[in-house]
Amino acid sequence: MATATLLISCPDQKGLVAKVADWLYSHNGNIIHADQHTDAVANLFLMRVEWDLAGFRIDRHEIDSKFTLLADSIEARWQLHFSDRVRRIAIFASKQDHCLYDLILRQRSQELQASIPVVISNHPNLEPVAHNFGINFHYLPITSETKTAQEVHQLALLKQYDIDLVVLAKYMQVLSPNFLADFSQVINIHHSFLPAFAGANPYQRAHERGVKIIGATAHYVTEDLDEGPIIEQDVIRVSHRDAVSDLIRKGKDLERIVLARAVRLHLENRVLVYGLSANPNLGLRTVVFD
Amino acid sequence: MATATLLISCPDQKGLVAKVADWLYSHNGNIIHADQHTDAVANLFLMRVEWDLAGFRIDRHEIDSKFTLLADSIEARWQLHFSDRVRRIAIFASKQDHCLYDLILRQRSQELQASIPVVISNHPNLEPVAHNFGINFHYLPITSETKTAQEVHQLALLKQYDIDLVVLAKYMQVLSPNFLADFSQVINIHHSFLPAFAGANPYQRAHERGVKIIGATAHYVTEDLDEGPIIEQDVIRVSHRDAVSDLIRKGKDLERIVLARAVRLHLENRVLVYGLSANPNLGLRTVVFD
Amino acid sequence: MATATLLISCPDQKGLVAKVADWLYSHNGNIIHADQHTDAVANLFLMRVEWDLAGFRIDRHEIDSKFTLLADSIEARWQLHFSDRVRRIAIFASKQDHCLYDLILRQRSQELQASIPVVISNHPNLEPVAHNFGINFHYLPITSETKTAQEVHQLALLKQYDIDLVVLAKYMQVLSPNFLADFSQVINIHHSFLPAFAGANPYQRAHERGVKIIGATAHYVTEDLDEGPIIEQDVIRVSHRDAVSDLIRKGKDLERIVLARAVRLHLENRVLVYGLSANPNLGLRTVVFD
Amino acid sequence: MATATLLISCPDQKGLVAKVADWLYSHNGNIIHADQHTDAVANLFLMRVEWDLAGFRIDRHEIDSKFTLLADSIEARWQLHFSDRVRRIAIFASKQDHCLYDLILRQRSQELQASIPVVISNHPNLEPVAHNFGINFHYLPITSETKTAQEVHQLALLKQYDIDLVVLAKYMQVLSPNFLADFSQVINIHHSFLPAFAGANPYQRAHERGVKIIGATAHYVTEDLDEGPIIEQDVIRVSHRDAVSDLIRKGKDLERIVLARAVRLHLENRVLVYGLSANPNLGLRTVVFD
Repeated sequence: MATATLLISCPDQKGLVAKVADWLYSHNGNIIHADQHTDAVANLFLMRVEWDLAGFRIDRHEIDSKFTLLADSIEARWQLHFSDRVRRIAIFASKQDHCLYDLILRQRSQELQASIPVVISNHPNLEPVAHNFGINFHYLPITSETKTAQEVHQLALLKQYDIDLVVLAKYMQVLSPNFLADFSQVINIHHSFLPAFAGANPYQRAHERGVKIIGATAHYVTEDLDEGPIIEQDVIRVSHRDAVSDLIRKGKDLERIVLARAVRLHLENRVLVYGLSANPNLGLRTVVFD
Repeated sequence: MATATLLISCPDQKGLVAKVADWLYSHNGNIIHADQHTDAVANLFLMRVEWDLAGFRIDRHEIDSKFTLLADSIEARWQLHFSDRVRRIAIFASKQDHCLYDLILRQRSQELQASIPVVISNHPNLEPVAHNFGINFHYLPITSETKTAQEVHQLALLKQYDIDLVVLAKYMQVLSPNFLADFSQVINIHHSFLPAFAGANPYQRAHERGVKIIGATAHYVTEDLDEGPIIEQDVIRVSHRDAVSDLIRKGKDLERIVLARAVRLHLENRVLVYGLSANPNLGLRTVVFD
Repeated sequence: MATATLLISCPDQKGLVAKVADWLYSHNGNIIHADQHTDAVANLFLMRVEWDLAGFRIDRHEIDSKFTLLADSIEARWQLHFSDRVRRIAIFASKQDHCLYDLILRQRSQELQASIPVVISNHPNLEPVAHNFGINFHYLPITSETKTAQEVHQLALLKQYDIDLVVLAKYMQVLSPNFLADFSQVINIHHSFLPAFAGANPYQRAHERGVKIIGATAHYVTEDLDEGPIIEQDVIRVSHRDAVSDLIRKGKDLERIVLARAVRLHLENRVLVYGLSANPNLGLRTVVFD
Repeated sequence: MATATLLISCPDQKGLVAKVADWLYSHNGNIIHADQHTDAVANLFLMRVEWDLAGFRIDRHEIDSKFTLLADSIEARWQLHFSDRVRRIAIFASKQDHCLYDLILRQRSQELQASIPVVISNHPNLEPVAHNFGINFHYLPITSETKTAQEVHQLALLKQYDIDLVVLAKYMQVLSPNFLADFSQVINIHHSFLPAFAGANPYQRAHERGVKIIGATAHYVTEDLDEGPIIEQDVIRVSHRDAVSDLIRKGKDLERIVLARAVRLHLENRVLVYGLSANPNLGLRTVVFD
């Protein structure tokens, strides 16, 4: 079944559910999933609505232009997605393979509705993994001197492969503001329960602090390191018996699962980012319509 | 803010969200929360919609009769609730006080929007707890001989106190089909992760089986013991170090929390029971619009 | 059954388990529970051993002096506790009653082996709760001007009531270094998953950050606010639907449970604090022998 | 560091810790990890002790015979394991690849200290996965007619490959009592929170029952299907939105993690099976020394 999904955010007012549902019904749209949220602080109405394209009386190429009328009347920002357009993912990795394998295997088993045409890495180690699954691999080593130039290469590759989403699968480099200005759809996995242990060596620091639970956090990448809007988090219990190496081992399971869930939610168009203030970079949060 | 909430279930068809949202909007209703679910197996559309009564152009006493028109046209079963009508709870207890205290304290701290005018018990022990909080206490001891007669007393008390909901807070008696035919809004807490360890002595049996996790289950009571539709469950990890007494202790925390959550979800009209088959007593499940 | 428990920490070396177990066995001690941990970084051996006093051939008043010989030979720091000496707890509270009620009810139901002779508060609100359970209540209001003097009063009360442990049950004041120098056995509950959201208003800040999980942390109080050694933590999932008031409500359940677990572990002499470095105030962690 | 581990179970009596610790210390053994448990119901003392072989004054080939003296004197059943003897695992699989991949990748990343020389399957599908990692693959299709004969082949392969442990990684066949009589070290993953939904189609049945949490269980295989001693369990929350296919997807993550944990605990000799009664097949439980 091919579906269309609208993600809508607009100033809150009466009748928004009715207006959107009416518009769909008037064109014979059968809603599969509809969910709304109103953020009282930001005075925002946020909605996800997914409907069956079969029988829908607007051709899919005209939905965009037709919906604009309604969207304008409610001052909405919106995205339109089709379930049968397969998104293209570029995975950025470094040396660790657990998240890379995990994403590829989930994609292969149809758990992630996407294609993965390319892996880009600042180390050569994982080339066999990519090739093993018939995925192109680009080795772009990065030093402080070459970083700017290599990011230009990376961006060119994203264009070349027609990439929709970059997933940082334990990619141990920080993307520059320039990169993000050019390509902003990036999901990262941070190996801590943010905002605890933002920055480097979170497992080491968690061990030193003697926490009884560790976590992992998947978030959209913004210019502010480890400050991007959180998509998903999960945790696991640890004890004094766990050395740093045990935290790393336990954390790898968290990283895999949390990152995969976040990518899946993104691919299913279930994540809507919004800000609590007028400043577009401040206080970004997500609504996850699951 | 006073709100009204409709819980609707009807055969699935196109345009249901639009029809309900339209009806509300046409009477100037401002939706606070709307959520839907379609069960493909049962071919049922299930919806919860809550709106602000301020500014709504139908008098609250006429909402019922006005909505009937729409409801009939979509063959819906439905319930209408008002947030400012305080539901009245009767707590049934036996000897254990932890769930009784928990519910009373949550009610006192406004976490549960309800009143608790009466506690009914088959043991006299908890009378001081009830009286301490100014709650009437009725001691109705039960033997196999007196059970039928005492249930008549219980039902009379429910009428007398104008009770909307009975909560079995570790009440160690089974309600008869006759009782339930007369009063069906009953929530129970079972001290296991149903369907595991249904019946008696679940902690003892969990210990013997050597499980690594125990649970608790809150469900609506039906004639089929421990088979009623599940509202909420939660679990906690245990180990070989935990004796049966430790399982009981850990379980008490689960029982408290799971029962309180279920009661809260019920009071906020977030729980809709439906069946997977035409048989109204078979395969009952809940949608929890949280 | 009356038992004795030794908590031992000493430089790691061969034969420590044998030496301690031998000493007990040679005096006819029957070990009920023994657990050890070696911290490789700190090069410390940490042990908890609990044995039945029945049949033990050293009189309980002489255990201390007799064990000193062994302890000195392995350069151990150690504590000796008897299970039948009921510890005396002073609860410090402010306005919120949920942790206070929780601790009292667990003590009443024998879940906590201790007595609670006194509640001390900087607000008068909770006096009825204390009196209801026959517990003395002292109202010691605190301003920046009166803090030093009132802490002197508090310390005098701790002496007067012969208190072993202070539990800060949502006590909204910071204890001064002077207080802690005089009385150091203090457990606090912080309403966040430390080190995330240390300091004030953690639920508000968690909401703004858009985290998907919130937590609570019980720790020993040290001079460094929110930096004391962690005894126990737990978490619960939240979503965009949860307003700050929902986080507070969900957090209250966490606070209750996490604090009660920590107090219980302390009372059962299962918590051993040690430092990762020679600096006695730096990097304090706990071993929890559970 | 090469270590030796003893897993001991014997009738409870005084001095057992001392005797074992003394024996090790008298031969210059440095204990790395020691843990004990006493089951009061079974009157059994259960112990795990691991020590450094460096400096130990008994040659590793003589430990067995030397320890027998002590073991006999305390009527102990015991196992001796060396950390540097790499255990050999045969994975049994059917069509699903997620647990197979997971175990192989964990083995490759050194998380599991074992070798995996062979995969045996009743379907040909997963041969490429095995070959991809250089693992031999044997396709032994099974019908009710061929089952007995194929089990003979399986057992021959286990001998041929010198296998220590069989892991059923979603192997959809039941091993016969004959097989288990010949080879008893078998770990299975069951896709439910046992004892709930023992038997076939647990996800389907969990969905019909409307549970709010699903689980997975890793256990040693015994003649009684789904009744073997539980090694590890874990759970995940589900809701009415989750179709059976979602339960399967979520369950796959549980299955992977729970099975891997159980295999790891087994390989580290942390699991000791014992019975609550004299009947060796009744009420088997595990102590997990983690």
